[in-house]
Amino acid sequence: MTRSPLARPFPHLAKIAGMRPAVARARYKDWDRCDLTFVRLAEGTTAAGVLTNSKCPSPEVEWCRKALTLGQARALVVNAGNSNAFTGSRGRAAVEAIAARTAAHLGCQPSNVFIASTGVIGVPLPVDKAEAGLDAAFDAPECDWLAAAEAIGTTDTFPKGAVQRAVIDGRTATLAGIIKGSGMIAPDMATMLGFIFTDAAVDPAFLQQLLDRTNGRTFSCITVDGDTSTSDTVLAFATGAAGNSPLSSFDDPGADAFAAALDTLCLELAQLVVRDGEGASKFIEVQVTGATSDTSARRVAMSIANSPLVKTAIAGEDANWGRVVMAVGKAGEPAERDQLSIRFGNTVVAQNGCAVEGYDEGPVAAHLKGEEVEIGVDLGLGGGHATVWTCDLTHGYISINADYRS
Amino acid sequence: MTRSPLARPFPHLAKIAGMRPAVARARYKDWDRCDLTFVRLAEGTTAAGVLTNSKCPSPEVEWCRKALTLGQARALVVNAGNSNAFTGSRGRAAVEAIAARTAAHLGCQPSNVFIASTGVIGVPLPVDKAEAGLDAAFDAPECDWLAAAEAIGTTDTFPKGAVQRAVIDGRTATLAGIIKGSGMIAPDMATMLGFIFTDAAVDPAFLQQLLDRTNGRTFSCITVDGDTSTSDTVLAFATGAAGNSPLSSFDDPGADAFAAALDTLCLELAQLVVRDGEGASKFIEVQVTGATSDTSARRVAMSIANSPLVKTAIAGEDANWGRVVMAVGKAGEPAERDQLSIRFGNTVVAQNGCAVEGYDEGPVAAHLKGEEVEIGVDLGLGGGHATVWTCDLTHGYISINADYRS
Repeated sequence: MTRSPLARPFPHLAKIAGMRPAVARARYKDWDRCDLTFVRLAEGTTAAGVLTNSKCPSPEVEWCRKALTLGQARALVVNAGNSNAFTGSRGRAAVEAIAARTAAHLGCQPSNVFIASTGVIGVPLPVDKAEAGLDAAFDAPECDWLAAAEAIGTTDTFPKGAVQRAVIDGRTATLAGIIKGSGMIAPDMATMLGFIFTDAAVDPAFLQQLLDRTNGRTFSCITVDGDTSTSDTVLAFATGAAGNSPLSSFDDPGADAFAAALDTLCLELAQLVVRDGEGASKFIEVQVTGATSDTSARRVAMSIANSPLVKTAIAGEDANWGRVVMAVGKAGEPAERDQLSIRFGNTVVAQNGCAVEGYDEGPVAAHLKGEEVEIGVDLGLGGGHATVWTCDLTHGYISINADYRS
Repeated sequence: MTRSPLARPFPHLAKIAGMRPAVARARYKDWDRCDLTFVRLAEGTTAAGVLTNSKCPSPEVEWCRKALTLGQARALVVNAGNSNAFTGSRGRAAVEAIAARTAAHLGCQPSNVFIASTGVIGVPLPVDKAEAGLDAAFDAPECDWLAAAEAIGTTDTFPKGAVQRAVIDGRTATLAGIIKGSGMIAPDMATMLGFIFTDAAVDPAFLQQLLDRTNGRTFSCITVDGDTSTSDTVLAFATGAAGNSPLSSFDDPGADAFAAALDTLCLELAQLVVRDGEGASKFIEVQVTGATSDTSARRVAMSIANSPLVKTAIAGEDANWGRVVMAVGKAGEPAERDQLSIRFGNTVVAQNGCAVEGYDEGPVAAHLKGEEVEIGVDLGLGGGHATVWTCDLTHGYISINADYRS
């Protein structure tokens, strides 16, 4: 797979005290790479998560949803190459076997083991491969972040990670995350698999509250193809090794700083997924203002970001704002044609229901030739606003997905 | 533009008494073809229509919506090459000028003139070209259906028409229609421009009732790219020349036959649009059964039909039913993963939440190699069902839309 032209170098991520990642070869596919990731977490680690809203979720998603009601984690296991989704009772049995073996190894409850899988739908995860991979991972040396970021990937063309720091209660906490995903990416809890680790101490309910909040601004604001995965999972783990008094509400000192760091981290991770969008050649930011509400603004923005005609126009570097009008019109949200204005970059090309006569095409053409494209829409109705991120739709997407064998 | 591999030959369409079509060159674009269609309609012709639900409709759509409140037609004018959408007051003035000139020519009210335009968004329709084209059309000889079907087209790769007959009240009425569209085609009143003519006598309110009913089963059940046009318009005109007592309800003799003929005609026309879907290489029928309601079934079917991952899989002749599961799951409608069954053609490939072990891949592969592909999904929950039609997503779609200049 050719590396995405929008790729970013993998950053240096500091170690997080209280967690120990390792990778192994389970050989879920016929490939010569690590595809099982095992992260050991210190006793007392709290967990939060956001999971796909798909009505056909994988058994891993159902397992995590249940485990999150307790909010305590001792391990994370990630399988790459097989999503184990839509595999019936055999798929459920595979998840239970992984949890049981890991719990026995660590001497913890199975419900303290979080599991995520990614890859082809409909093939039961082979329990023998999972168990052999797990045993190898139990004995493997600690790996670095890059190795883990690579091991969770599937059709990803580059490994993706980000790091942030926050001072809480006089102590510096680190937040680091890795993420994977490039196709089947859409708004309803939007990425395939993302994992965030911090050494801060955070009560699980508050960690969940923070993750839900940031999800609405980050992961749920990206789309590659409008197709929501059966396995979308973002999990956050807080080991508490930083030694701060556990955060339990925004009233606690440092809670704001931690929340801000989490927001920034998640936004970076979400945008990295868009940068690895299948076939992407442009990174597109869609800003909608003047809507009757933030929710309405987000729907309009997603209608634009998911429109194949808008996405192909950007691929063709064509300032085809008529397609943006179309996408606003079809969103089903309050909009008044004659109040609408549209810009590419900083140049307003249409307003008050018609084209801006003689707008300067030079800066628009230059903007569209760049790697990062900004589409701004003001609905002129109210104060609602939203920003979402997507990529263009190119021959690369077709090649990747019409050739991918099930 | 290469003729779609799914094209159908243009049928022989009988003349409809009470209407007289003519075409002319308005030269809206730099092309050597007729692009203005003028259909004169007998006094007493009734009209019905369904129009885009876009919040950013063209002034033509707004004009027709108003004219339909009266339901009387003396003329139809269709411009190809310029949609006149999002053109502010200048666009509205162009529509009024066309109506006024046509009304003066015929000695009727401007509100008896129906107007539709298709083409690029954002460029005001040039009134001088429209008026010169109209004058030429007023003097032009009557044309045949093929000429009219060609003149209303834009990126269409083949002319599209259909004909049906119904016996009403001892008299045989003819229904004929032409339609255009190939991109920006989506469910909310789904085709770009379609025109239906009949010599039956039908009260306008009943004609509207019948058209609304058939629209829900035909035009609103097709999608090419999920992008709803600002100009979608289907108009039906009944000249009354067949001499039957005007139909005004289902209690009238022949009303059922007329309604059935209208259904069949509209289904043929709608499917022809899918067959000219931009870049289409496969015609796809999606049948959803077992839903909690027909509405729910249609939403699930449209989620499948609009999924880029499903559409690329069909383009690649890949029985990737996992993507169908994904599309069912993201539809947001009631679905139970473990009750779901999926078939390609007549072969069930997944049921009860997992793959059918050892299903016969031969007939599935053979089915997917064909030009017409059937995807069946049974949700196993209730009696709701729906069928929708779409095409695959290929390199052709990208080429057409990333190169199209605004």
